[in-house]
Amino acid sequence: MGRRGRCPEESSLLESARLLDVDLVSICGGAGACRRCRIQIVSGEVSLPTSVDQDTFSKVELNQGYRLACTAFPKSDIRVLVPPESLSTPQRMQVEGLDLRVDPDPQARGLDVQLTPPSLENPEPDDRNLWGALERAHGIAPGTIDLTVQQVLSSRLRTLNWKASVVLRESEIIALDAPATRWIGLAVDIGTTKIAVYLVDMKSGRIAASSGLMNPQISYGEDVVSRIYIAGESAENAEKLQALLVDALNSSVAALCAEIGSDPLHIADAVVVGNTAIHHLFLRLPVQQLGLVPYVPAVRSAVDIKARDIGLKTAPGGYVHMLPNVAGYVGADHVAMLLATEIDEREGVTLALDIGTNTEICLNCHGKMKSVSCASGPAFEGAHIQFGMRAAKGAIEHVRLSGERLEIQTIGGDAPVGICGSGLLDGIAQMLQNGVIDASGRMQDHPLVRKRNDRREFVLAERPGKDDITISQKDVRELQAAKTAIRLGIQALLEDAGIVEADIDRVIIAGAFGTFIDVQSAIAIGMLPPLPLERFQQVGNAAGTGARLALISRDKRRTALAIAARDGYIELACIPDFNSKFAAASSMTW
Amino acid sequence: MGRRGRCPEESSLLESARLLDVDLVSICGGAGACRRCRIQIVSGEVSLPTSVDQDTFSKVELNQGYRLACTAFPKSDIRVLVPPESLSTPQRMQVEGLDLRVDPDPQARGLDVQLTPPSLENPEPDDRNLWGALERAHGIAPGTIDLTVQQVLSSRLRTLNWKASVVLRESEIIALDAPATRWIGLAVDIGTTKIAVYLVDMKSGRIAASSGLMNPQISYGEDVVSRIYIAGESAENAEKLQALLVDALNSSVAALCAEIGSDPLHIADAVVVGNTAIHHLFLRLPVQQLGLVPYVPAVRSAVDIKARDIGLKTAPGGYVHMLPNVAGYVGADHVAMLLATEIDEREGVTLALDIGTNTEICLNCHGKMKSVSCASGPAFEGAHIQFGMRAAKGAIEHVRLSGERLEIQTIGGDAPVGICGSGLLDGIAQMLQNGVIDASGRMQDHPLVRKRNDRREFVLAERPGKDDITISQKDVRELQAAKTAIRLGIQALLEDAGIVEADIDRVIIAGAFGTFIDVQSAIAIGMLPPLPLERFQQVGNAAGTGARLALISRDKRRTALAIAARDGYIELACIPDFNSKFAAASSMTW
Repeated sequence: MGRRGRCPEESSLLESARLLDVDLVSICGGAGACRRCRIQIVSGEVSLPTSVDQDTFSKVELNQGYRLACTAFPKSDIRVLVPPESLSTPQRMQVEGLDLRVDPDPQARGLDVQLTPPSLENPEPDDRNLWGALERAHGIAPGTIDLTVQQVLSSRLRTLNWKASVVLRESEIIALDAPATRWIGLAVDIGTTKIAVYLVDMKSGRIAASSGLMNPQISYGEDVVSRIYIAGESAENAEKLQALLVDALNSSVAALCAEIGSDPLHIADAVVVGNTAIHHLFLRLPVQQLGLVPYVPAVRSAVDIKARDIGLKTAPGGYVHMLPNVAGYVGADHVAMLLATEIDEREGVTLALDIGTNTEICLNCHGKMKSVSCASGPAFEGAHIQFGMRAAKGAIEHVRLSGERLEIQTIGGDAPVGICGSGLLDGIAQMLQNGVIDASGRMQDHPLVRKRNDRREFVLAERPGKDDITISQKDVRELQAAKTAIRLGIQALLEDAGIVEADIDRVIIAGAFGTFIDVQSAIAIGMLPPLPLERFQQVGNAAGTGARLALISRDKRRTALAIAARDGYIELACIPDFNSKFAAASSMTW
Repeated sequence: MGRRGRCPEESSLLESARLLDVDLVSICGGAGACRRCRIQIVSGEVSLPTSVDQDTFSKVELNQGYRLACTAFPKSDIRVLVPPESLSTPQRMQVEGLDLRVDPDPQARGLDVQLTPPSLENPEPDDRNLWGALERAHGIAPGTIDLTVQQVLSSRLRTLNWKASVVLRESEIIALDAPATRWIGLAVDIGTTKIAVYLVDMKSGRIAASSGLMNPQISYGEDVVSRIYIAGESAENAEKLQALLVDALNSSVAALCAEIGSDPLHIADAVVVGNTAIHHLFLRLPVQQLGLVPYVPAVRSAVDIKARDIGLKTAPGGYVHMLPNVAGYVGADHVAMLLATEIDEREGVTLALDIGTNTEICLNCHGKMKSVSCASGPAFEGAHIQFGMRAAKGAIEHVRLSGERLEIQTIGGDAPVGICGSGLLDGIAQMLQNGVIDASGRMQDHPLVRKRNDRREFVLAERPGKDDITISQKDVRELQAAKTAIRLGIQALLEDAGIVEADIDRVIIAGAFGTFIDVQSAIAIGMLPPLPLERFQQVGNAAGTGARLALISRDKRRTALAIAARDGYIELACIPDFNSKFAAASSMTW
């Protein structure tokens, strides 16, 4: 993370990290009990492993320098690596995916040029003049110029005194501005519930600014099926749904640009991903057929359109690239996730999940890739949960229950104001392990369980003068439905490939929510298969990362096409014995 | 012309032609005096040449079967070729350029396809399904689909029961409709004063409908210089000037489509030509620099844009192709004229003129091509002329004066209502030859000259109860200015090439006006050099024909690029001794 400082004497690495504003997860407050503050000593000397370290880590890990920060003390200058999963949510969101492991080679690149002013002896037309300068300085052959650039060409060249920076995309000039303009790229992952927006420096490929916002289409239905229905009702509805998205994006992008002293006019390229329904609604493509057997997309191929054709405000000549879809319910966001996790290149058996309102799962079984889509609902995003909220300050993100002893950790250590997805999963897993709910998900008597309006609820935090924060029986059912859908999807893929859970070599968990969950909790409630923890890898918003990769790398765009073409698709509703399998998967102890 | 019928006994070919609705020019009413009703006997036997024939035609021409129709009588079944210049104006407009001498190979072509409905077993996305059908039926590899087609793809394919006709342009699908849709093309020649609009059948390349309309930008200035000034004043003005053009085109195209039972949605491709200023105003490109030294265009290259980006109503995914410009005052219309007349391929010395409000002239001197632009003004189009009108019914199109004996011919033989360009030219030439005006252009005393408000005017037609139709001294001056500009342009080209008038092997006269003028009259007033008549060729709206060629032939688009790159440019204002040359060229007897 690049932080550097002096550790006070007698301070643990957990305490020292806090002094450097590195916000490690710690539920027990440094007592060596919660085992969440895992770090790796990369160089230098540190105190010997404690017995808790020896309980927590394998021998190999201990040799690699893994320790709990709360019980480790430096003995020399040391370098410490902080795994993302040991960071609190807000910090993790800041740092995730900074390193994309590719050299930027974007489709749209900025180039500085110097022209020769025309004269009566040499009355070179402005377009030829510009191409001549590009050929001299960069060896580029003449191509085309977007109409909007043609429309400002003469006046801008003269105002800029015949020096300029242009954006070239393939053989088309799509933008023109002052020399040394810092051209930026826009990568967007539109989820059913949430949208992640990234501004990327096109030269370095680094994130210049990012933000998350709610998908405003939510007011037209929380799941894509209701939005498909509403958009199909009338052209006005479809237009409204599209305008909502584009308007929200335009506002968010304008604010982010202001943050970094840029302007949407300097957005040279954009990549947008989303599931197939979102993809179609964003482009105003027909969606009715997505709601009818055989659920085919209007468009599967990657799409390149002028941003202006859908009202997205970028450089006026700029394009939006949409990654390809796979099927009606396996969309471009899934392809982006597969691209970012490089699942197509992995050997053995890899399972990759992008957990969200729709959860897409891909199994790469010795080179054969198939995907499935599960309607897991918005519980993980905080919707439909009584005290649900997004992962912001004051959200309960981790819960530990031991008999009657309850410990909670909130984001930022603030007074609790609600529960985010990972907190809900933790809480319900702890309730299950402590007998507060049974295998069917039914809440039992317990000192922390009380009744309100004749319904049981588990008290997470008492707040004098305000409503106590609780997990209700209904909240449990919401999560149960979600985990059932996901586990069923995994089973369908395994069955199709003719393998069993133990054959899975690694499980990649993507999605904002997936990054923050405690895998042990997810295994405990039967959402994920009970595999050794080291087989799980949490990779953050991999769909967003995939969008950023496609933004800055032409090679990655090509790879995305290959992935979409290779990935098979299983229709979950078509699997044999669906109902009985569904019943089995809904058990909390399955 | 394809007409066929029986000639009554004792009827001349002029009378027989009229019975077949072939409207031959005849000023003297069949007396063998005006020598305008020239025809060629292609096969069969006809009466021997009269003495007037022998006066009118060379021996070679007589052997080729040339006769005056009024004194020729058939002796057997015969086939007659009617040269366009022997047809009256309205008929000539109907038939001109029907034969383009190229096999249609348009950039945008319609293709019928049959798709396989998707099923759960084979849930092919609609876009892949369409490309698969195109590959099966036509061997076409998958490409891209315009967003607007994507937006209707699923619903239309289902409504059309999986059969469709698509328009493929390069590798992009730009339109989709019912099978066997008759796709049409739009070719437009936007003049400073007049606009010619053609709808073309994309399969046959033939004109399906055409019309002429006024350029509505005239309300913002009759010449391009005033429009450049006004557009440069504010973005609103520039937008207004563009909107005027596009609105007028949209109305005209909609009406033409209705005429042939088509719809603008079935316009698969469009080619638009105009001079550089009109080209820029149409695309909303900057024009200020066109009004300032060194008068450079913003854009010289050929331009392909989506029609929707400028508001032109065609198939929503369709393109507009603009032919390349040459220089600030030698535009795409000139390139189109050169393309249609194939001047680039001619050997020897060829001069080509496109006469209009701006007259562009090109000299191909043994393979070296140079062009010049002359501000000839709108007199030929009927503007600034007291009784000026367009070539419509009742317009005086031909005039003969012999002493005091005046003969006029009107279009359609109707009562005279005004004078069109060719009538004005004829009239003034006849006035000069009969001493009604002197070499300086000053009107003399003559029985047909009278004074009104102290100004002289020549009476062409008395109209009891209405104003008599006259040619005023001011009208003479207008035409004189126009002819001076044109002759100066010709001289500048000859001087640049180091040749003299007599070296010119052929003169091609294009433009609606140029087609209808009497070349002898134009020579008489010194507008055209005094060369033998057989060296002149009148080719009609060659710019419009060039636009149609580029519409239906990819090869011709490439040729247009080559022509624009090859054509040099002379700035008339830069030639040495401009003022003294101008004074000399203004003499009516030069």
